[in-house]
Amino acid sequence: MKIGIVGGTGDIGEGLAHRLSHQHEIIIGSRNKERACTMSDGLTENLGERGIKADCSGATNQEAVDKADIVVLSVNYKHLESTLAELTGFEDKIVITPVNPISKGDHFYFDPPAEGSAALEIKRLLPESSRIVASFNNISAQKWKRLDEKLDYSVVVCSDDQDAKRTVMELVNSISELKALDGGPLEMSSVVESITPLILNIAKFNHMKDVGLRFF
Amino acid sequence: MKIGIVGGTGDIGEGLAHRLSHQHEIIIGSRNKERACTMSDGLTENLGERGIKADCSGATNQEAVDKADIVVLSVNYKHLESTLAELTGFEDKIVITPVNPISKGDHFYFDPPAEGSAALEIKRLLPESSRIVASFNNISAQKWKRLDEKLDYSVVVCSDDQDAKRTVMELVNSISELKALDGGPLEMSSVVESITPLILNIAKFNHMKDVGLRFF
Repeated sequence: MKIGIVGGTGDIGEGLAHRLSHQHEIIIGSRNKERACTMSDGLTENLGERGIKADCSGATNQEAVDKADIVVLSVNYKHLESTLAELTGFEDKIVITPVNPISKGDHFYFDPPAEGSAALEIKRLLPESSRIVASFNNISAQKWKRLDEKLDYSVVVCSDDQDAKRTVMELVNSISELKALDGGPLEMSSVVESITPLILNIAKFNHMKDVGLRFF
Repeated sequence: MKIGIVGGTGDIGEGLAHRLSHQHEIIIGSRNKERACTMSDGLTENLGERGIKADCSGATNQEAVDKADIVVLSVNYKHLESTLAELTGFEDKIVITPVNPISKGDHFYFDPPAEGSAALEIKRLLPESSRIVASFNNISAQKWKRLDEKLDYSVVVCSDDQDAKRTVMELVNSISELKALDGGPLEMSSVVESITPLILNIAKFNHMKDVGLRFF
């Protein structure tokens, strides 16, 4: 599959690209195409040294949307609305959102938009035919990037589009030892997103690192 | 410690009493004292057959509050407000809430009161000096009751009272292989409570049983 990553030079984008480019065509999108190309070259070299052939290219965010079957919105929540306002062409595409609206005071807390979650806001902002799937919300960016570490977390996948959900669950299950779990409709994304600030608090208050979770 | 369980004849109450009565004095409270006494007798016999000496008694809910150092509100959310309205004497006591406000349509969903969580509503309903701690929210009632099964879940503990939180974390860690995690202030109880309907959906949509979770 062709997977376009909007904001692909960020932590999660970089991790996803590293973990997926040996089995899928990855288009790393960025507002700065040059930066995306540099990252793509680095990634190709990096994986090449490990004997892994990467299928990866740099692009603008718009090109990443246009070329992809699946678009991943690897965007910090605070840039989400402005980023989507600049992009078109999401019709009929599977759109994965790992976006978590989080704020921080003494502790991290869930700070959702009026819709209830970032995923539900994205549903409002994008064309009706786009197939929104919340996934990869609860994985530490640092873990994504350390290629030698296995990822053995549960990944909850929520969507109102059953086919899109199944496709994304297969994608999740193809990465390291991640285990996809059907979390139900997109409405449940509010819970999944809110788990991320809880994870950050658990790390902070219990002196743990790169906390993840597993349902079993 | 003396642990009083309001609604102690319910599933979680029964499980907690079974798991704690060999090391703490358990007062099983009920609106129907006779029922509480019957359960206490059954539990004592049940544990006795396993060579475990239980320190357990039946009581009214009010007696369970009055006699206890720690009160557990083992009450279905829909009976929470009416139950608390009938009880007094929570001043200065540690009050554990495993209560989850959940509703169900096609799927289970979090259905919190205006305060944001059951724990925050309890904080409003009880005297200011009571020391509210959200804990045990995400453990399947069935798992509690099967004494031969180890409980190896993470248990997130949230409170604004650091001493009470520490006491409850020690209590959690004394049960089977549960691992207490400091989840931060009571405000975070909204996330912890909302994880329970997600767990129920995961069980339903992925054909799993007695789903629990672990942060690691």
